[in-house]
Amino acid sequence: MTTESLNFPVIGSDALKAAFRTHASGVAIITSHDNDGLPIGFTATSVTSLGSNPPLVSFNIARGSSSYPQLVIGREVALHTLCAKNLSLAQRMAGPKENRFTDADFELIGKVPVFREASSILIGKVRERFEVESNAVVILDILHGTEPMEQTRPLLYFQRGYLTATERLAENS
Amino acid sequence: MTTESLNFPVIGSDALKAAFRTHASGVAIITSHDNDGLPIGFTATSVTSLGSNPPLVSFNIARGSSSYPQLVIGREVALHTLCAKNLSLAQRMAGPKENRFTDADFELIGKVPVFREASSILIGKVRERFEVESNAVVILDILHGTEPMEQTRPLLYFQRGYLTATERLAENS
Repeated sequence: MTTESLNFPVIGSDALKAAFRTHASGVAIITSHDNDGLPIGFTATSVTSLGSNPPLVSFNIARGSSSYPQLVIGREVALHTLCAKNLSLAQRMAGPKENRFTDADFELIGKVPVFREASSILIGKVRERFEVESNAVVILDILHGTEPMEQTRPLLYFQRGYLTATERLAENS
Repeated sequence: MTTESLNFPVIGSDALKAAFRTHASGVAIITSHDNDGLPIGFTATSVTSLGSNPPLVSFNIARGSSSYPQLVIGREVALHTLCAKNLSLAQRMAGPKENRFTDADFELIGKVPVFREASSILIGKVRERFEVESNAVVILDILHGTEPMEQTRPLLYFQRGYLTATERLAENS
């Protein structure tokens, strides 16, 4: 056994999963429409800024997901950042696809469903997709957005549950 | 004025900055070495998993940063996830470069500096770099890692300050 294997005994994907259990992330919702004009959307914990001049956002997605083929270059997308009050919305958009747009709590901007209760909403377009193995990094050009709510408590994902900055809200079942 | 501009009055980079003030992120430290074998490292809030089979991580970086030219394909990198106890380490690695490795609180694994006090450490190699305007998405192949600490409180970045899941720890000055 080398010194290195003694220091770092967890290998490959087990190491990755163990490390990311100790790493919290903000929770967002991405929405768009499919080729038939029907709403699509999902909860994402990989949304991050990629620079502000020009304004760019990146997020990661499995190439095997049903949403990925719809996120073609130029497709309009809404990115919602979420606060603690949006917990049930985050859970619904991470649940069964057939339940995601059955409530009439969204409006359509063009063909893109938008949830007004989110802390903030950005409208963008898919600029580029970088495929790596069975996943992809999707880059959005940001066009414009809402005036964000002030003084919100952010919604977080950590150790398989949702949290806010002051208290744990619910387990991810 | 169109309905859309009434709904989304904040334009471009202002919209992006406003939205991301409402979005929290986990805090990590990335370390490696330069072409002369000297330690480099920085605090990053864009670290996210890109799939576990094979284990991949992505993070975003400005192409103009001094670290970017060192993160060549194949370069060994350590990724540290941080807990609340690592606040001062996060602040130091986000501060002046000349102060980042002056304390003897790291060890070298090969040429890569590693901070044992972090919640978890992953060792990986730069696999790909996707350049977009003045920024880049860097993809790491993960090789192995430490046994993460149990029951840590994650270190978060939100509204220009550091927080943990239960209390705000310090402002980012």
